[in-house]
This record gives sequence, C-alpha cells and structure tokens, in this order.
Amino acid sequence: MKGGRDMFVRPLIERKRDGGALGADEWSRLVNAYAAGEVPDYQMAALLMAILLNGLDGRELGALTDAMCASGARLAFGPDAQPQVDKHSTGGVGDKVSLVLAPLVASLGVSVPMISGRGLAHTGGTLDKLEAIPGFRVDLSLDEARRQVERIGIAMLGQTDEIAPADRKLYALRDATGTVDAIPLIAASIMSKKLAEGLTGLVLDIKRGSGAFLPELDRDVELAQTMIRLGEERGCPTVALITAMDRPLGHACGNALETEEALAALRGEGPADLMEVTYALGTEMLLLAGVVAARPDARSMLEQAITSGRAADRFRELVAAQGGNPAVVDDPSVLPQAPLTRVFEAPAAGMVERVEPRRLGEAVAAMGGARRHVEDDIDLSVGIVVTVKPGDRVKQGQPIASIYARDEAGMAEGRAALDAAVLIGAPDDPEALPLISHRVTAQSVELLV
Amino acid sequence: MKGGRDMFVRPLIERKRDGGALGADEWSRLVNAYAAGEVPDYQMAALLMAILLNGLDGRELGALTDAMCASGARLAFGPDAQPQVDKHSTGGVGDKVSLVLAPLVASLGVSVPMISGRGLAHTGGTLDKLEAIPGFRVDLSLDEARRQVERIGIAMLGQTDEIAPADRKLYALRDATGTVDAIPLIAASIMSKKLAEGLTGLVLDIKRGSGAFLPELDRDVELAQTMIRLGEERGCPTVALITAMDRPLGHACGNALETEEALAALRGEGPADLMEVTYALGTEMLLLAGVVAARPDARSMLEQAITSGRAADRFRELVAAQGGNPAVVDDPSVLPQAPLTRVFEAPAAGMVERVEPRRLGEAVAAMGGARRHVEDDIDLSVGIVVTVKPGDRVKQGQPIASIYARDEAGMAEGRAALDAAVLIGAPDDPEALPLISHRVTAQSVELLV
Repeated sequence: MKGGRDMFVRPLIERKRDGGALGADEWSRLVNAYAAGEVPDYQMAALLMAILLNGLDGRELGALTDAMCASGARLAFGPDAQPQVDKHSTGGVGDKVSLVLAPLVASLGVSVPMISGRGLAHTGGTLDKLEAIPGFRVDLSLDEARRQVERIGIAMLGQTDEIAPADRKLYALRDATGTVDAIPLIAASIMSKKLAEGLTGLVLDIKRGSGAFLPELDRDVELAQTMIRLGEERGCPTVALITAMDRPLGHACGNALETEEALAALRGEGPADLMEVTYALGTEMLLLAGVVAARPDARSMLEQAITSGRAADRFRELVAAQGGNPAVVDDPSVLPQAPLTRVFEAPAAGMVERVEPRRLGEAVAAMGGARRHVEDDIDLSVGIVVTVKPGDRVKQGQPIASIYARDEAGMAEGRAALDAAVLIGAPDDPEALPLISHRVTAQSVELLV
Repeated sequence: MKGGRDMFVRPLIERKRDGGALGADEWSRLVNAYAAGEVPDYQMAALLMAILLNGLDGRELGALTDAMCASGARLAFGPDAQPQVDKHSTGGVGDKVSLVLAPLVASLGVSVPMISGRGLAHTGGTLDKLEAIPGFRVDLSLDEARRQVERIGIAMLGQTDEIAPADRKLYALRDATGTVDAIPLIAASIMSKKLAEGLTGLVLDIKRGSGAFLPELDRDVELAQTMIRLGEERGCPTVALITAMDRPLGHACGNALETEEALAALRGEGPADLMEVTYALGTEMLLLAGVVAARPDARSMLEQAITSGRAADRFRELVAAQGGNPAVVDDPSVLPQAPLTRVFEAPAAGMVERVEPRRLGEAVAAMGGARRHVEDDIDLSVGIVVTVKPGDRVKQGQPIASIYARDEAGMAEGRAALDAAVLIGAPDDPEALPLISHRVTAQSVELLV
C-alpha cells in the first residue's frame, strides 16, 4: 500500500463514498488502470462497496459500461451483414432457452452471435449445457466467431479474454467481496459484454420469483429498465420480458438433461412452458431484427421453423461447426449419462402447490452438477427431471420426477430436495406467477396478463 | 480469488452491507485471520467501506476493538506499580503537548507509558518531534518500555509490531481505500492501542476546528463519547477535553521548532495557550490517577512542577534513557537547524482575524516537513513560527512570523502559506473557538465556557 500510481484512486473512492459522481474520463481511466493491474483489488473492492451502497447515476453507469466494453475487442460485422440479435437471461433453474432459441432465430435470416456464461450456485449456464455435447468447443476466438456467424448465422461461445476483460476481473472481485447484488453493477457487467457483440438488437429475459437471481418484481423492472436505457443510448434497441422463475422452466434441471430437453424442443417435442418462453423471446428478436413487422407473423414463422425441422438443422450445423457430434440432435444417448437413475413418486394425492426451483438447483449443485465457485469442475450428467407443474393434480405413488445421480449420496440429496421442493396440498388457487408477466421497453412497462 | 479459507468472510461482508451485525466471535476470527494474512485485503476493504457507510453497533465496536488489541501484546505492570495514565490527541497543527505533558505528569508520581504516532498530511506527530533530539530512540520494545516506566515513570515510543498489529495493517488499508474517516474505525484504532498500555486512566484531547481531523463539534463529541464508552467498559476510566484547532497551538509548526517550543515550556517559558491546554489535560490525568482529589490542587501541583524544574528534570531523564542528548533541554541549538530563515511581516495594520492551521500545516508538509504517505522521509528542521493569535492587533510591517526552509522553493511556499493563512482585518469580534470548550465524561458533556 505504497503511494504510487494507484493514489489517483483514493479521491475517487472518497467521492463515491460521500455520494458524489465520477466523470466519464475518471471511469475510463479507472477501468483501464484496473484491467492493466495498476489499481489494486483492495481499492476497487472499497469502490465497489461504495457503489453498491450509494448507487451510480445514469451518466456514471453509461461511462462505466462503455469503459468496461472498451477494455476489450468487439465483434465487427460488415455493413451488408444480416441483422445481429441476441438474447440474455438473468438465469434460472431449468433455463435451457438459449439452446433452442439461438438456432431457431438463426434459421430465419437473423444472425445470433451469442456469448454466454457458465452456471454458478443454483443456476445453470449455457456453456455447460453445450459442453454436454461430445466434442463441442465453446472457446472460439472472436475472429472464429465472426467468420462462423457470417457463414451459418450463429455462434455460441464463452466470454473470451478478448471481450470486456475488465468485466471478467471485476466479476471475480465482486464475487469475493459481497458486491455482486447491485443493479448498476449487474447491468454494466451484462451490457458491456452484449454491446461488444455489435448487435442491432437485444432481448432480455429477466427471471422473477424464488429461483431467480433477483426474486422481487420491482428490482427486476429496475434492472430491465437500467439495461434497456444502456442499450438504447448506445444504438442497440433493447426489449425485456419478465418471466416466471418460481418453478423450473421445462422439466429438466441439470446440464445434459437440459440439453436433451432442448434437443426435444428443437424436434417439436418440448414442454409447453419452454416453448412459450422461447416463442415470446423469438418474436421480440425477429421484430428487433426487422425481418417481420407483425407480431402474429413472427410467431407463426417461429412455429414453422420448428415443425419444418429448419431450427434443428441449424443446430446441427452449429454443432458441426464447433467440433461437436451433430447426431446428438436425434440420438441424445451420446450425452453423458448418470450411472444411477431412480423415479420419485408423489408422497400423497392432491394438487401440486409449489415446485421450488432454488432447492432443486441447489440439490443439482450438491450432486456435483453445478459450481460453488467459478473454478470448480462439474459432472454434466447429474440432475433432476420434474414432470409436474404447480396446478397439476397427482395421485399418491404416481411418478412425478426422476433423479440422475453419480452415487447414493447424490441420490439421497436429490430425494431430499424433491421432498422439500414439491409441495402437494389442496389449494383453491396455487400461487404460481404468470409465465410471461411483463414486457418492458424504453417507453413502457406493459402488463401481459 | 479462489474459494478457500477466506470464503468465511463473504457472508460477513454481506451481512454488514445489508445493515446487520457481526457477533464477537466473528470479529475475533476475522481480525485474527486478517492479521495472519489469511483474509485478503480486498475483502477487508469491502467490509471497511460497508462499516463506514452502515456503522457498527456498540457491541460490535467493543468486539472489534478487543480483537484488534488482542492481536498483539500488552504492557503489564505489577499490582504495586504506580497508576499509569496516558493522553491521546486526535492531532493538529502545532500540537506539541505530549512533549511537555508526559514528563510533567510523570514527575508527580504517575507513570506515563505513551505510545505515539508519526505525523501524516498536515498534522504533526510526537515521534517525529522526539526524533529531532539527536540520538533519541523511539523504537523501544515493549519490554524495554515496561522496565523504563518502572524505573523513571515514563517512556515515549512508537507503535511496535508487538502492539495491536491488526490495527497497523488495517490502518494502512484504510489509508489507501478512503475508509479512514469513520468514527467507529477511528475509535477502535486508537483504543485498541491505548488499551494495550495497561492504563488506569486515559485523557483524550479531541481537536475541533478547521485544522482538526474532524472539524465539526458534533462529530468530535460523538468520537469522544465512543472512545470513552470503549474505555470505561474495559476498566479504563476515560475523560475527553475538546480543544481549539482553528489556529495552531502555541507558535511553532514544524518538528524541531515544536520540540524547541516544548522545551521552552518545560523551562516555564511556554506560550499561554500551550500551557493552558497542558495544565487542563494534566489536571484530568492527575485526578484519574488518584494522586490528588481536588481540581485546584492538581493545577497548582502542575504549575509548581514546571517552575521548580521537576518536569524538565524528568524530561532530561527520559532523553538520557532513550539514547538522546539531555543537554537539549537547555541548549536547543543541538536540534536540526534549517539553512534559511526569514522574518514575515504584517502586510497591513489591523486585528488578526484568522490564523488558518490547515494551510500552515500543508505548507510545512510541502516544505519537506511532513509526510504525504506513511513511508516518506521528512526534514525535521523546516517549519513556520507564527507569533500572533486571532484577536491580536498588529502594525503594518511588524514581524509576525518566521519561516525556516531548506531552500528558496520552501521559503516561497512558507510565504505563500502565511499570505493565505494570516487574515488581518478589522473585525468587531474575531471568530476564534474557545481554547478548551467541552469536557466529556461517561456521564455528561460539560460546556466549559
């Protein structure tokens, strides 16, 4: 802790601590110096806590996001390229939408250069699900990704060192210092990466409910509006849907199991809620891309791309382009298989009141299927498939779930989670959130139900 | 930032961030682990910012202070030892009280085991003033200090690695992360060291006004009460005086110049304000030590110890015991002398309205006489002596100050500071703070004027 180059940071920390604002030049200098290792983590940690507790105004947030984005490279497409649209989800249990949505939209003349993350804690990550496909490489360079998008309209990859390296470093620090859960920091982190994709439009899937990162509706709307403002101000039209995460999306929770369910969805055999969310997000993407003007037309284009097999074909091309075995689409047995499988039966008759996603997500993590820390290794085969939803009537002894474990300890973990997570009662009115409750744009928050 | 032993800290940061409280065991574990290098600085920095912005309750503050104190050794005196009393000042410009007060009180049958700090920014430090005396060693071990106190009733030393090492490490981190200015952290830092001195009583000199660390009266009272509560709860009766720091104390600002003024005070030739503050603090120390029961008796004992030369004798013994040249008391020419000296004259006739201490302290620092950062080297000889006080009438051209510099740049710095700091006008009522305005105890805040 010597007085050196890093000493320009202390007055900035003090200003943020005292409720003041930093200028755009200050954010830029700070983020660049941090990315270059010239600002120590302890100073940045103090600043992050001051931001969490005192907030950032709109200009500061824009400057921070720009600085984080500018710390790395961008995907650049030529002026004659197809429109490029992406989707980002705040993450939930059983959320395998990206695997269906990206090839679906890409099969309709829109480019999807999708940079995704890995699962952490109780939520899954798209990269882990893709890696369940034998041979599939997610570590494309930006140049490889650009060329692939130009060729087949789709690439699905991880955050490389090229994209927003300052965000990568900041995220690890936030994770260690209790400063993840701040809306401006979440928004800056997501948007700095998405803005590096050179998009013509972005759709956000903001998860709400007990299994979501931010369970409360008011914070979800605030996060949506914050990200929309960042996108719109930077020439990237952005729309958000707020969707239910008070129960898993679809049935499968666990990487290979979710991949299998996504493949079924591409073959037209997906669960209704997964398809509904996929179509709703896809509609927004097609409208943003300008390939269709009317909402009902977008919906029927999407449905047709599934029934015709076009979306599945595009996924086969994607898998082949990224080194995986495209036969997986029709033969999921090539996915990792858990050694132990057991059926879970309804302990009583009645109506399913709750299927608590967080408890299930945590069980999958405890079974070895998700990370406690970013550097953990995981077992892609394990998980839980719950075939009932809140509102379903069940008989005692009826199979309602399957557990896929690598050992008896994992099996016991899965059983305990199902015992706790699936609540069977006789409610007059099971309290499930509407699947898609709000559409948020730069102009309005539209209630959809 | 790996998931390891340090991961017990994140939930503690999150709790503090969300306005909760940590238990005594948690503070103890945290402070010990930090002192042992097992908690990274970035986690502690985030926690410090959360403490600064969300506060600590009384139980937490006590637990933090105890943990910091327990991270090191304590001075332990036998049951038959003299009472041990110390004074701590929050620091100001021209504050050389310790050099007069410690030998004065020690000469009256009270032990003074004084652990002091170095100057930083615009405020001076006792250790630097002592080191102006050729040969004087402030780096005593605790064992040396204890034996010296038992022999001559006084030791004046720096914070060693033995005393509250967790505080030392935390202070450096606070300095770099904008988290110095939090009353609970200031109180814990000071009291963790003072409580390690094994005291029977403690007097606090809380400086107020523009040259003070905390200029505002309400924060000064809060700091005083916070430290008093910590002391009283731990068996160390504590009293605070709030004294003026809207002008320098005495005339001299700069290390050797202040030492020279302190030696004059010990010889009975000190400026009135310096003597007044010294006697007021000394009275509280004698009362706490129980060597005298009535306030007026204490005052006359102190005055007599100065006029009789007893206090000066004790200082000579102190200097000799710690390796310095005791002749300094009567021959200040052995102190470091600045190569350039120049008189500063009143630019106009009138009444002195302000002598701004912070501007003068900053000038002494800029002249090389105080640290910008803890590891800086300093020139002990430089400084400024201002012989007028607010309320004094001056003629144009009358000498009102002297500048002691090592070069012409320093001389120009000193002159510019005096131009700005000494305001001569014709006020009806110069706005000086009362020299000693409040006496704060566990029971009350007493207005003294």
